[in-house]
Amino acid sequence: MSQNVAQKLIADHLVEGEMTPGSEIALTVDQTLTQDATGTMVMLELEAMGLDRIQTELSVQYVDHNLLQTDEKNPDDHLFLQSAAQRFGLWFSKAGNGVSHPVHQSRFGRPGATMIGSDSHTCAAGALGMLAIGVGGLEVAMAMAGQPLYVEMPEIWGVELTGDLPDWVSAKDVILELLRRHDVKGGVGRIIEYHGPGLAQLTAMDRHVIANMGAELGATTSVFPADDAVREYLEAVGRADDYTRIVADDDATYDVEEHIDLSTLEPLIAKPSSPGNVVPVSQVSDEDVFQVVVGSSANPGLRDFAVVAEILQGTQTSDQVSVDINPTSREVLADLITGGWMTSLVASGARIHQSGCMGCIGMGQAPASGRNSLRTMPRNFPGRSGTEEDAVWLCSPETAAASALTGKITDPRELASSHRIQYPKPQMPEHYSAYDDMLLAPLDPEKAAQVELVKGPNIASLPDFEPLRDRLEAPALLVMGDNVSTDEIMPAGSRVLPYRSNIPKIAEFSFERIDPTYSQRASAAQGGHVVVAGANYGQGSSREHAVIAPRYLGLRAVIAKSFARIHWQNLANFGILALEFDDPDAYGSIAQDDEVVFEDLRSALKSGTRISAQIGGRDVALHHRLSDRQVDMVLEGGRIPQAAKRA
Amino acid sequence: MSQNVAQKLIADHLVEGEMTPGSEIALTVDQTLTQDATGTMVMLELEAMGLDRIQTELSVQYVDHNLLQTDEKNPDDHLFLQSAAQRFGLWFSKAGNGVSHPVHQSRFGRPGATMIGSDSHTCAAGALGMLAIGVGGLEVAMAMAGQPLYVEMPEIWGVELTGDLPDWVSAKDVILELLRRHDVKGGVGRIIEYHGPGLAQLTAMDRHVIANMGAELGATTSVFPADDAVREYLEAVGRADDYTRIVADDDATYDVEEHIDLSTLEPLIAKPSSPGNVVPVSQVSDEDVFQVVVGSSANPGLRDFAVVAEILQGTQTSDQVSVDINPTSREVLADLITGGWMTSLVASGARIHQSGCMGCIGMGQAPASGRNSLRTMPRNFPGRSGTEEDAVWLCSPETAAASALTGKITDPRELASSHRIQYPKPQMPEHYSAYDDMLLAPLDPEKAAQVELVKGPNIASLPDFEPLRDRLEAPALLVMGDNVSTDEIMPAGSRVLPYRSNIPKIAEFSFERIDPTYSQRASAAQGGHVVVAGANYGQGSSREHAVIAPRYLGLRAVIAKSFARIHWQNLANFGILALEFDDPDAYGSIAQDDEVVFEDLRSALKSGTRISAQIGGRDVALHHRLSDRQVDMVLEGGRIPQAAKRA
Repeated sequence: MSQNVAQKLIADHLVEGEMTPGSEIALTVDQTLTQDATGTMVMLELEAMGLDRIQTELSVQYVDHNLLQTDEKNPDDHLFLQSAAQRFGLWFSKAGNGVSHPVHQSRFGRPGATMIGSDSHTCAAGALGMLAIGVGGLEVAMAMAGQPLYVEMPEIWGVELTGDLPDWVSAKDVILELLRRHDVKGGVGRIIEYHGPGLAQLTAMDRHVIANMGAELGATTSVFPADDAVREYLEAVGRADDYTRIVADDDATYDVEEHIDLSTLEPLIAKPSSPGNVVPVSQVSDEDVFQVVVGSSANPGLRDFAVVAEILQGTQTSDQVSVDINPTSREVLADLITGGWMTSLVASGARIHQSGCMGCIGMGQAPASGRNSLRTMPRNFPGRSGTEEDAVWLCSPETAAASALTGKITDPRELASSHRIQYPKPQMPEHYSAYDDMLLAPLDPEKAAQVELVKGPNIASLPDFEPLRDRLEAPALLVMGDNVSTDEIMPAGSRVLPYRSNIPKIAEFSFERIDPTYSQRASAAQGGHVVVAGANYGQGSSREHAVIAPRYLGLRAVIAKSFARIHWQNLANFGILALEFDDPDAYGSIAQDDEVVFEDLRSALKSGTRISAQIGGRDVALHHRLSDRQVDMVLEGGRIPQAAKRA
Repeated sequence: MSQNVAQKLIADHLVEGEMTPGSEIALTVDQTLTQDATGTMVMLELEAMGLDRIQTELSVQYVDHNLLQTDEKNPDDHLFLQSAAQRFGLWFSKAGNGVSHPVHQSRFGRPGATMIGSDSHTCAAGALGMLAIGVGGLEVAMAMAGQPLYVEMPEIWGVELTGDLPDWVSAKDVILELLRRHDVKGGVGRIIEYHGPGLAQLTAMDRHVIANMGAELGATTSVFPADDAVREYLEAVGRADDYTRIVADDDATYDVEEHIDLSTLEPLIAKPSSPGNVVPVSQVSDEDVFQVVVGSSANPGLRDFAVVAEILQGTQTSDQVSVDINPTSREVLADLITGGWMTSLVASGARIHQSGCMGCIGMGQAPASGRNSLRTMPRNFPGRSGTEEDAVWLCSPETAAASALTGKITDPRELASSHRIQYPKPQMPEHYSAYDDMLLAPLDPEKAAQVELVKGPNIASLPDFEPLRDRLEAPALLVMGDNVSTDEIMPAGSRVLPYRSNIPKIAEFSFERIDPTYSQRASAAQGGHVVVAGANYGQGSSREHAVIAPRYLGLRAVIAKSFARIHWQNLANFGILALEFDDPDAYGSIAQDDEVVFEDLRSALKSGTRISAQIGGRDVALHHRLSDRQVDMVLEGGRIPQAAKRA
């Protein structure tokens, strides 16, 4: 049967299940990617699992998020991650080496491989014909331990590209067009696969731009064929041998079909404060601009910086604009220097920052309050920049450069007449810089076994998670309403995130927004506790801390009307029993501090889906939706003790 | 009468007083320098004084300290400073343009001029034959308003340099040698004037290194002659016309004489945590190194980075070291790129940071806890790096580069045998880059008058300061030891500095490092309070917040064995009485919370220098060193209420 690229990649790695959209499949994982903001927890999970050495073909630990070192916590984490990479057999990319996604594409990406990463933009690797999916940290840890990835088979959404991009319009405008059409939930449950004759003009780095921001559509991932553009790219980074041609069969079909005529596109921009708020730049021109930021994994290629440099060459940027240039990697920086582009950027007034994620995750270069900031980055959720009252816009490098020049939001096509600037088409070098010396290779197993993890004072091991008890008698410490988000369960932000490697400390912030007394009351309830909630419990971010921290404080069961999908999986992963009411009205009879009693819990779980409880002296009928795999996980206390027991 | 250089500069600007060491003189001020950490307060002071336009020949507002933008506070301040520079007629150097001292030397420094700056390293300009003095912000505001600078006539300390520096030994080692000999108080009350045949081999940027760190000796300033080296420098930066020859008369004499034979020097390093803890590098070699930082106003020249690049060229720095390179200015960055040095640095593994003060002021690149960090910076006071338990060492670029290579503290002379590296002598370009377009020129007065100050939500007006009471009965809330630095009185760093425009908020951090209960206890002591200290109280940075914030909390008098100069002036400027023990041994009898009682304080101050106090029930004889002008200031509650009363 003829297949598209996504189907070929899935079929090649399928170990369980049917490739029918919506049914659970299991895939072998070739590569993993972790970054420092999530990687510390992954490494602590590997430690807790007692893993000796990773089982993947290749795993890389990057340090790119928390590069601002305002105190010891971030540099301590960097040393911890370096020691953990050595201990478990990962590659290690030091702080300042660059953003994970473009560095991975340059040094490790391989057509045909699967990859999962504890970063939502892992999907960028689809540019090389990989199947690359962003997941929670424990999924990555399990993949390193040799387990497959369990995921619902997505629909394949074929996007056919035809026509040629006009001058001043580039890859960023293509993905902004998809966001304009479908908004931020348009890709949920789908893999976006690009095909058609328009592909020929998109380099592998252009495709990276498009695949990266597929995350903003909510897509499972994005996939491009591994064709001549990929071959040319791999040759240019000195890895021609890693090329394999992978293209859709001629008569391949897609579950959903869509078409973009590239020749009809114009410069687009996402207004504050959602990547889905896309309008033509020409509709919002003349807004004042105070900051322009070029960088991040959404526009990471040499070309994306070079085009800015050539637009700005020989001119001065506006007095009122801070122009912040953030070369995505050491290699891009080196090539910008060699090509003369960096000199132009410096002379035109740009501030040059160290390679990393920087303002894209609110780690530096926050804008002034209420002042427009134009960025080539992928996200502009409110406050994400670090400034509470921010006004962040997302655009192409061309639009960013034009606006830096004028101090107003400017359609770059205007530069031809207003500044007599021809659309620059920077000449890329035949070979890109490649700094493999900067990537610390895995130690051989004998040496690795002797490495001690280097833990600064803020890095605590994962607590032990004991098995589920057969009888549970515990108070319902919270009774919450509908749509409780993981942000309410465990806040993010600069006050809380520095403690991401320290569960006992971060646990103090659990449910802080709902009930600031929770963490104290939970600690006092020695025999564990339960929480009760309405519908859609745990919506929002996938963060694991929203499960690990309450679990650390003694949470053993959540009883709700219904659960959000990822949080529900995370609960099982960490051994918390997620139960639903048979009759949702039973929710109304429960009061805070009611005693909840489960009898014969282990045998009930093993024998079916029905669980009965006494709550406040009344019998309440409940059920669970766990697979056998997950039941076993919960009985053992979570996926980590389960794995430890099997080892 | 024959004169040395310092005497010539003083005589040329003298408007009041006698040039007798110890007596108060008043000098006209040609130029001023403000940076962003202190400048926001200066601009608020200008606003409070109702100034229309500055009266100096030239004043420049730099933005170099608070470049980390983790929220809106720093970028809001940058916009405020830009608007204030326009309003009052200053030049403005945008964020990222570079560190004030080297940029000022390159674009504005003029032999023979006087300059004051609200930054303790303002003295660096002595490299060009200027008389440049670091002072509190209010002194700078007063100078901009046309008032002269009042200062005690210092002793002139002639340091004769002979001999040639050996290979691998450079300007930094010269000033470290003076610190080794005299420690951090050795220069108090003195101007250090360098002379002798050894000068010929020191370029103007080498002299900048030495003059800059004269601040660490506590010197009023440092002075070099304006000779051929200065002429060559001004030619290289395209300002040959600004050259005037100023050298000591042949038979000039000095109040204090000293000699350094440069040929006997070896690589030196200041151990944690004082710039005075100087030992030969060879005595501490083999200590593990985890971070090397090259940058700051203490080693700002192109040569200082180029020598590191040439040492590292073609090699990889140690896996365990984070090598952080912080080009001091946009111009240095451009010249590093043009010279090929930046490519070497990037390839060897360095992280390249935006131009600014960065880690020197704890604004980024904090080291891991307890791990050795080698820096070419001027200061290593405990915690100044941002890491509470830090271990910061100060050294030359040569020693920094050698240690980056090996991962151990390494005497660079060893590289000749261990790595077969010849001592590099980088060839400087005939002309340095000069980016005058990046410096925003003052507006003409008509336009300036129409500019509105742009105040973000965190920029608050100055509090009111009431006059000194005649009877003061107040507890001694702190009894501190010797050498308390302004970093201990008011920490810098990313946590605190964003509040520098907000006195009520920043006051909460006062003395935090010495006693975290201070601010609460001070607020509780309604009738004001006193603090007691040993010798050299208030050394280090010139920051006024170290006076304004405790004053806001009720500090009315400091009793110490002795004071550092700038802090002593700042105390008077803000109406805090600085008193010294007649008998330093009396210090030993004072305990924390002892009640301090002053009777008839106002009349005692008006009638002489002797002040008696009852401390813990015992009579203690004290004196002050205030001029009549300063006594009046203190009686009125500080210089601002004094000026307001006169207006």
